[in-house]
Amino acid sequence: MESIDKIHGTFEKKQSEQKNGQVSAAVIKRLPRYHRYLGDLLREGILRISSASLSRLMNVTASQIRQDLNCFGGFGQQGYGYNVKYLYGKISELLGVNEGYRAVIVGAGNLGSALAATHMFERRGIARVAMFDTNPDIIGTKIYGIPVYSVDELGSFCERESISIGVLSVPKEAAYDVARVMVDAGVKGLWNFANMELKLDNPDVIVENIHLGDSLMKLCFKIKTKSEEADND
Amino acid sequence: MESIDKIHGTFEKKQSEQKNGQVSAAVIKRLPRYHRYLGDLLREGILRISSASLSRLMNVTASQIRQDLNCFGGFGQQGYGYNVKYLYGKISELLGVNEGYRAVIVGAGNLGSALAATHMFERRGIARVAMFDTNPDIIGTKIYGIPVYSVDELGSFCERESISIGVLSVPKEAAYDVARVMVDAGVKGLWNFANMELKLDNPDVIVENIHLGDSLMKLCFKIKTKSEEADND
Repeated sequence: MESIDKIHGTFEKKQSEQKNGQVSAAVIKRLPRYHRYLGDLLREGILRISSASLSRLMNVTASQIRQDLNCFGGFGQQGYGYNVKYLYGKISELLGVNEGYRAVIVGAGNLGSALAATHMFERRGIARVAMFDTNPDIIGTKIYGIPVYSVDELGSFCERESISIGVLSVPKEAAYDVARVMVDAGVKGLWNFANMELKLDNPDVIVENIHLGDSLMKLCFKIKTKSEEADND
Repeated sequence: MESIDKIHGTFEKKQSEQKNGQVSAAVIKRLPRYHRYLGDLLREGILRISSASLSRLMNVTASQIRQDLNCFGGFGQQGYGYNVKYLYGKISELLGVNEGYRAVIVGAGNLGSALAATHMFERRGIARVAMFDTNPDIIGTKIYGIPVYSVDELGSFCERESISIGVLSVPKEAAYDVARVMVDAGVKGLWNFANMELKLDNPDVIVENIHLGDSLMKLCFKIKTKSEEADND
């Protein structure tokens, strides 16, 4: 049984890898979700898990899980299951977690403060070193322990402190100005909550635009479809 | 020229439609983004737009745009371009916008307040009628005009006020309790910001889980990949 599994594992490994031993883009896309679940398991003290259990937990077929994870070599002997810590570490490494990225949050309103309150950054090895705002009432204070500076200092700060990630929780109208200052100061990636699609001329800077409204719309569409189904029953 | 275009339009229409004149799932998935762009154009007072201009704006090929939108009949005569208002209305209808859905936001912390401050809901025809929290200091106040009630009243309120959508901006630990109360009170869809995957036994209730961390991770991965590319140059 073990040898068949081994052969199966090797076959799947070949299938899911691309040239130069790179993990395929399709697998990469699914990894953040595995990372999230494995992180939760680790925090619960669960150190190993079978593909069947992980399958039930994540609502993904066991065969998909094997295909996605076996190429990391995280599968132990038959009957042992996956080593959660090892897999979590491997996926973290692959995804660029714990690269020591440093981030700033621009815009210290409700959304900026909500982002300051989460554990999202620390869990991915990202240090949030400062927040920036234009409001004199909050400049000089700390929000969840993060110091708030004037947006006038944004460029020089990012340059001096080697900031890699800029989070934009500013109004739409301010987004391009803030983005340009950060890009000129060497920031490598922008996480954009300004509710507009930020397009930069500089192809070296990565932008992740968050569009919560699209998700809300998906929800409405599904509710509508479900109601219509029910009406037709 | 016009007749060729018409034939082309009809052909594409057939291709992108499924049985019973339904728009295909692939097109549906792309519609929220069209809806967002068309809404922005309308607010700027732009009433018609060519597929070429929309293509540049949205960074999608003109042929993809024609394929996605021609089945709505929103394309006018050759050289006229799309009727923005008509298309926006058609897509809104299809997506379940303006169905008159009523929503509550549970959790009036930073994230809940940020959600109270956006125009996201109103733009999709959703009325936010109330917020709920456990903090006695904010119960009885209004946040951006929305009254805040005690979470003890959540169930009876949802039932009495025919609430369709529940937004969860509560801590992870409270998510299931809050969800159950709302589902029992007839809420049809949950928009979950509690940073965990909410799974309900009731297949009739739609859940949209928001995982901002997955997007942050994608950003890290792209920065890392880009840096490695640069190192190899």
